[in-house]
Amino acid sequence: MITLTTDFGLQDVYVGVMKGVIASINPNINIVDLSHEISPQNITAGRFCLMNAIPYFPPDTVHIAVVDPGVGSLRKNCAIALPNGFLVGPDNGLFSGVLHQFPAQKVVILNNSKYWRTETVSSTFHGRDIFAPVGAHLASGVPIEELGESISAEDLTPFSFPSPQEQEETIIGYVQYIDYFGNLITNIPATEVRRKQWFAIIKDQVISSGKTYSSCPPQNLVALIGSHGWVEIAINQGNVAKTLGITYGDPIEISFPSTDEKE
Amino acid sequence: MITLTTDFGLQDVYVGVMKGVIASINPNINIVDLSHEISPQNITAGRFCLMNAIPYFPPDTVHIAVVDPGVGSLRKNCAIALPNGFLVGPDNGLFSGVLHQFPAQKVVILNNSKYWRTETVSSTFHGRDIFAPVGAHLASGVPIEELGESISAEDLTPFSFPSPQEQEETIIGYVQYIDYFGNLITNIPATEVRRKQWFAIIKDQVISSGKTYSSCPPQNLVALIGSHGWVEIAINQGNVAKTLGITYGDPIEISFPSTDEKE
Amino acid sequence: MITLTTDFGLQDVYVGVMKGVIASINPNINIVDLSHEISPQNITAGRFCLMNAIPYFPPDTVHIAVVDPGVGSLRKNCAIALPNGFLVGPDNGLFSGVLHQFPAQKVVILNNSKYWRTETVSSTFHGRDIFAPVGAHLASGVPIEELGESISAEDLTPFSFPSPQEQEETIIGYVQYIDYFGNLITNIPATEVRRKQWFAIIKDQVISSGKTYSSCPPQNLVALIGSHGWVEIAINQGNVAKTLGITYGDPIEISFPSTDEKE
Repeated sequence: MITLTTDFGLQDVYVGVMKGVIASINPNINIVDLSHEISPQNITAGRFCLMNAIPYFPPDTVHIAVVDPGVGSLRKNCAIALPNGFLVGPDNGLFSGVLHQFPAQKVVILNNSKYWRTETVSSTFHGRDIFAPVGAHLASGVPIEELGESISAEDLTPFSFPSPQEQEETIIGYVQYIDYFGNLITNIPATEVRRKQWFAIIKDQVISSGKTYSSCPPQNLVALIGSHGWVEIAINQGNVAKTLGITYGDPIEISFPSTDEKE
Repeated sequence: MITLTTDFGLQDVYVGVMKGVIASINPNINIVDLSHEISPQNITAGRFCLMNAIPYFPPDTVHIAVVDPGVGSLRKNCAIALPNGFLVGPDNGLFSGVLHQFPAQKVVILNNSKYWRTETVSSTFHGRDIFAPVGAHLASGVPIEELGESISAEDLTPFSFPSPQEQEETIIGYVQYIDYFGNLITNIPATEVRRKQWFAIIKDQVISSGKTYSSCPPQNLVALIGSHGWVEIAINQGNVAKTLGITYGDPIEISFPSTDEKE
Repeated sequence: MITLTTDFGLQDVYVGVMKGVIASINPNINIVDLSHEISPQNITAGRFCLMNAIPYFPPDTVHIAVVDPGVGSLRKNCAIALPNGFLVGPDNGLFSGVLHQFPAQKVVILNNSKYWRTETVSSTFHGRDIFAPVGAHLASGVPIEELGESISAEDLTPFSFPSPQEQEETIIGYVQYIDYFGNLITNIPATEVRRKQWFAIIKDQVISSGKTYSSCPPQNLVALIGSHGWVEIAINQGNVAKTLGITYGDPIEISFPSTDEKE
């Protein structure tokens, strides 16, 4: 099985072309789309999606991801073996979230052109010419070592995004994803808000916490632990990102009443 | 075979996660997307889509649908056996259209946690934790009785939407779906307009009937019997919902000239 | 294997219905979506997508395409055998780009209703009633001759779009596709700009050529040879179609400095 995650959108045939290349190598591979509507060139969003989907897939799944503002520049292409599958894509931080969850068992730079679609690759579409064929070969049993030169996981490009800052009675986190409904997903993990009472502050709005999207009246703001396991801000039946004008990286404060005790 | 219908959109990995959960239970299940762009939390739209797609699928297909504004509240989850397949999703009226077409042979409430992904389920993502695993087990041969407590079809939550009102020379119907092209699909069935001449009135505009979208000049309004078998209002090469500012539930009048005879 | 290309969008169940019809005829057919977001009724865009995707698919793939402003009118439906697969869809110029790349080995008009879904077809949804079932039978081994009356490829409806005009030091081409990122793809092939130096002029803006999208600073214009093999205009990390207000068929001039030599 192969999954595909890109910012190509579904209008153009780029994704279809990648599937044609995969089927031409091995027509029996089952292909699942994770998302092709990662916001264009937004590595933070792509990183989040991979981190939240990969744990649910069968072991040995090959996850190809292409969010690649630097395509054609000097950035490297890589394949990574995990305990529960493989990652294939550009070395630009896109896989840093997954690598935080699962240890890299082997990392290779994709410089063996034998597994590319052709020796001369497009400078704008590595998805078709390198990642799709390499992924198809990997899913068909080619050992990862064959795909190119091994490097250390520490030599992969790091990803820069601010970590949550914890203080006595507050935590400052950052919006790491805005979903289709406009819900804001912060990078504050559920484990940090294990208290009876907590609330969120964003753009001077104080937002009570609840259990579900419908735990407040329609069109009201609610802070909750989302299904991804992060603190999330939503509007019941509304779009909080649009309503409050929030974007990626914006800060969100979580506060605990000083009299409250940990659960 | 499993079909998926949700309002999750295709930007996020929610749909991909459901496919990962299904593949982890049974990698041989063929998954078809009906739509993931049901307008958010619009049960009327989801109900219409299911009703119009399910008749075309092979018997024994499992149709999982998640349009679920009440997720995490007290609403129940259900599985329903039809003569030509199975339905899995929230009990909120979403399946009421299909149940009007096909009789329910058995209805169960999904309270056997053995077939859930985990015993402790997310309060916001039953698609991943209950519907996907239950659907995968059903498609793999688990008998529906195993999934939980049987109830009567009459105990399912009813769906409220106004029925067409028929008078001597007019019928008042309501917009039950707005498609991608902005065409308005009413809840007036084709069988009600079997006359030589008929026309539609919407927002004081009188609209002649035709056979096809191109039976009037570009940018003109036309009333026709759509491929779904309902009276439909369209603009040839245009978007009638946007042009006239029409939304779900808006009334549309069909009139017959008094001198006309039934076909 | 069957591919699907339509302008139906992914909101409605039209595409899902076509997949249900195909699976009801043969559940073992692997279906790949090329695009369902061809801009509505834009034959030029659909033609471009098919032309750029079909070369990457395995031989014997059946490509069903439905961009069909004339559905229900007198335009014909056709199936075409190529050296590397089959085309099924309306005869309206949609396949003219592919037929420029690959010779038609056989062309039939789909008038054998035995291979339709029903004898009485919808006047608005030939995708469901004719193209999906015919494609499924073709992919299952029915000989193309069975599907209807043979005609000559020359009798297919021609496609009208201006060809590039070449002069001494300039070429005038036309926008034949606008992709998801807003990049403008002209109909000037890469082979026409094999010079050391060239630049593009569009709406009085002079645009330098580069190798990649990132070969200029963010938000700057660049002219390049895209992965499709055509001259393309892009804005690094931006949307050039929206920024400059360009649409299908708009002219773009390519100029060569008079002192430059051919490579």
